[in-house]
Amino acid sequence: KNGMIRVVQQSLLGSILSNMLLVLGCAFFTGGIVHYEKVQVFDKAPAVVNSGLLLMAVMGILFPAVLHFTHSEVHFGKSELALSRFSSCIMLIAYASYLFFQLRSHHNNYSSLEEEGDGNENPDEEEECELTKWEAIGWLAILTAWVSILSGYLVDAIEGASESWNIPVAFISVILLPIVGNAAEHASAIMFAMKDKLDITLGVAIGSSTQISMFVIPFCVVVGWCMGKPMDLNFQLFETATLFITVLVVAFMSQDGTSNYFKGLMLILCYLIVAASFFVHMDPKNSKNSEGE
Amino acid sequence: KNGMIRVVQQSLLGSILSNMLLVLGCAFFTGGIVHYEKVQVFDKAPAVVNSGLLLMAVMGILFPAVLHFTHSEVHFGKSELALSRFSSCIMLIAYASYLFFQLRSHHNNYSSLEEEGDGNENPDEEEECELTKWEAIGWLAILTAWVSILSGYLVDAIEGASESWNIPVAFISVILLPIVGNAAEHASAIMFAMKDKLDITLGVAIGSSTQISMFVIPFCVVVGWCMGKPMDLNFQLFETATLFITVLVVAFMSQDGTSNYFKGLMLILCYLIVAASFFVHMDPKNSKNSEGE
Amino acid sequence: KNGMIRVVQQSLLGSILSNMLLVLGCAFFTGGIVHYEKVQVFDKAPAVVNSGLLLMAVMGILFPAVLHFTHSEVHFGKSELALSRFSSCIMLIAYASYLFFQLRSHHNNYSSLEEEGDGNENPDEEEECELTKWEAIGWLAILTAWVSILSGYLVDAIEGASESWNIPVAFISVILLPIVGNAAEHASAIMFAMKDKLDITLGVAIGSSTQISMFVIPFCVVVGWCMGKPMDLNFQLFETATLFITVLVVAFMSQDGTSNYFKGLMLILCYLIVAASFFVHMDPKNSKNSEGE
Repeated sequence: KNGMIRVVQQSLLGSILSNMLLVLGCAFFTGGIVHYEKVQVFDKAPAVVNSGLLLMAVMGILFPAVLHFTHSEVHFGKSELALSRFSSCIMLIAYASYLFFQLRSHHNNYSSLEEEGDGNENPDEEEECELTKWEAIGWLAILTAWVSILSGYLVDAIEGASESWNIPVAFISVILLPIVGNAAEHASAIMFAMKDKLDITLGVAIGSSTQISMFVIPFCVVVGWCMGKPMDLNFQLFETATLFITVLVVAFMSQDGTSNYFKGLMLILCYLIVAASFFVHMDPKNSKNSEGE
Repeated sequence: KNGMIRVVQQSLLGSILSNMLLVLGCAFFTGGIVHYEKVQVFDKAPAVVNSGLLLMAVMGILFPAVLHFTHSEVHFGKSELALSRFSSCIMLIAYASYLFFQLRSHHNNYSSLEEEGDGNENPDEEEECELTKWEAIGWLAILTAWVSILSGYLVDAIEGASESWNIPVAFISVILLPIVGNAAEHASAIMFAMKDKLDITLGVAIGSSTQISMFVIPFCVVVGWCMGKPMDLNFQLFETATLFITVLVVAFMSQDGTSNYFKGLMLILCYLIVAASFFVHMDPKNSKNSEGE
Repeated sequence: KNGMIRVVQQSLLGSILSNMLLVLGCAFFTGGIVHYEKVQVFDKAPAVVNSGLLLMAVMGILFPAVLHFTHSEVHFGKSELALSRFSSCIMLIAYASYLFFQLRSHHNNYSSLEEEGDGNENPDEEEECELTKWEAIGWLAILTAWVSILSGYLVDAIEGASESWNIPVAFISVILLPIVGNAAEHASAIMFAMKDKLDITLGVAIGSSTQISMFVIPFCVVVGWCMGKPMDLNFQLFETATLFITVLVVAFMSQDGTSNYFKGLMLILCYLIVAASFFVHMDPKNSKNSEGE
């Protein structure tokens, strides 16, 4: 049962990493190759807000891990869980207000900016908006279903595969599963990048990462709370460090509002390094469990 | 006596965190609500310089903590103190040159930029400048007095309160004390944000954080040095990590020079997560001390 | 032999730190003093790409260190080496594609931007380009020669000097050696900053750092691999943290595309803090070796 929680955690983490590095990288790369002649631009404002939300998610995940690591909890074991549950509620509030902010006040806030600008892309953008909204709801449904199916019998399958292929469990749940799971996002992100609609690409790739980190993960913690299961936000130190540096790389890459094929290639290569590091990474707790059996 | 140094450290750290997240968050939030129709903008250049100074402070605090943690000092115990004292002097030099840079060359450096721009807000800005300067000196006096009073008898009061209310000492010194101590900053930051003078808000909120981290903390270390007390820059690993991620979040939030109510809400929610994590955090050294008594 | 690898690692790390903080800081400072009246600007796009590459290098160096630290490798000892070698190959691919990107598509990508702009600095920039290219090749040759000479007999010299002057080995290899080794870069970076050609200054200072971190270090790992030596990317935790925070400071400082003497001073002061922290830092492994002797 502990192993199941860990697999859920790792596959969610892997989904964030894969969306941010692989999906975004491939989209930037193909977009940059197709639109070789020009610099592709996207709107910086949503990228900054998304980076902020991702950093907030990193914060939520970092504190339980550091608390656990420095052994400075008030009540050993219990404190992390309580903190994780509180942080999850805060993260859900943040995500709900993010949706509210996007849906209700998007037009008010940005219309003044657009009026200052050319104002020629209004109808397009609204169309894109609805699209991403529906897509977002679609992905949400797919992901929730995927997670709930996964948690049932996938753990055994993964452990079986891990033994027969001689690949660490972490690699399967962090790298292989999310690549399959994110195939649809992958395809649509690349498609929109090739059409030079990078705002949608970012909405799909970084938006999905934000959604998983600020909605799906806290939601799982809250569901686990209701079901009395000790699912917390403590993704061990190594996973937290990986997420932290990935968020920083993507935040720096997206902050100047331009994209080219080299940026895409860099993100893909970063993903290869991340994948390789999970290939040689083994959960210390897991290994003790399997030794104990 | 060791506990006293720790309480001073933690309340200074808490003051930085509260200024950066709570004060700035509330100011952005109320400013964004009042000026709902438009995107509030502020000058990026001071925000970047302040972020740089805060990162420098993180650097100064990070190295002793990591040195201590990895046990790679040349002389155990003594090296951290020597490094802290040296770094404190460097930080004081940096802060002094920052003040010099702001006061003397502000006009020279920025006048060329403003001439390129509209140049219509010169008189206002100079007025604001003087205001923040006097405010800064006022805060400095208040804070110094506050710290000196605090160090005397507050430690006992905190420990008493901690026992009677059953709240960790860390939570009182990092969260509760600074909220009371920063009330004046809080009020003025919100007031200026509601008047759409975000540059002053940032000057108050981030400027105070910079001041505490680059002036008050190093000054305390140097004063402690003169008095022969082992006050150093080693704020344990957990506190350092908190400061680091907070500085990153604020730096990312302020880098694009715009603000809205959602950014404010995010900062407030981040503060809640930080507060919650200090609620379940207990100083490992402190706990040993109290066990020993 | 283990000590030799460590000295190579540390002097390469020191070279990165010195280029990013000291060389860039001095160049910004003198440039800012000479051009006191105006704000010096540089092109943001290469700075962002370079920051991205440096963050990728941090990623490559961080993972083996964290893996080692959390003891979560699949095969203790061997996994880090395998990961380092894989990451090194990825980093070399990234650097090769960076060079390709710079040389081949630089004109295509940026010409469209320049046409939108004034377009008055084209001839200058191309001249500068070739200059940096030749310089880059020159530095590459110098550095490679320097590293190969260094690895031979320098270790003994450093250890001797360390004993006779009573200075830690880390300080000599991380701080003193690179200051001497980077003298030429130092001079040219300052010269170009005084001529207000900050793009070249950044090309020299940050470009060299990128080159060392993404080419020289991985190249050494690959060469070590061919020679059967266990050179890896695991630069202990303290060094990794130093590099990480340094890259962040420089990335934040260079992101807004302007420079002034205060930024330069800040970078120099940051370097002093880094230097001081290496002065009190001793390699824990090294100390055991010398105790064992």
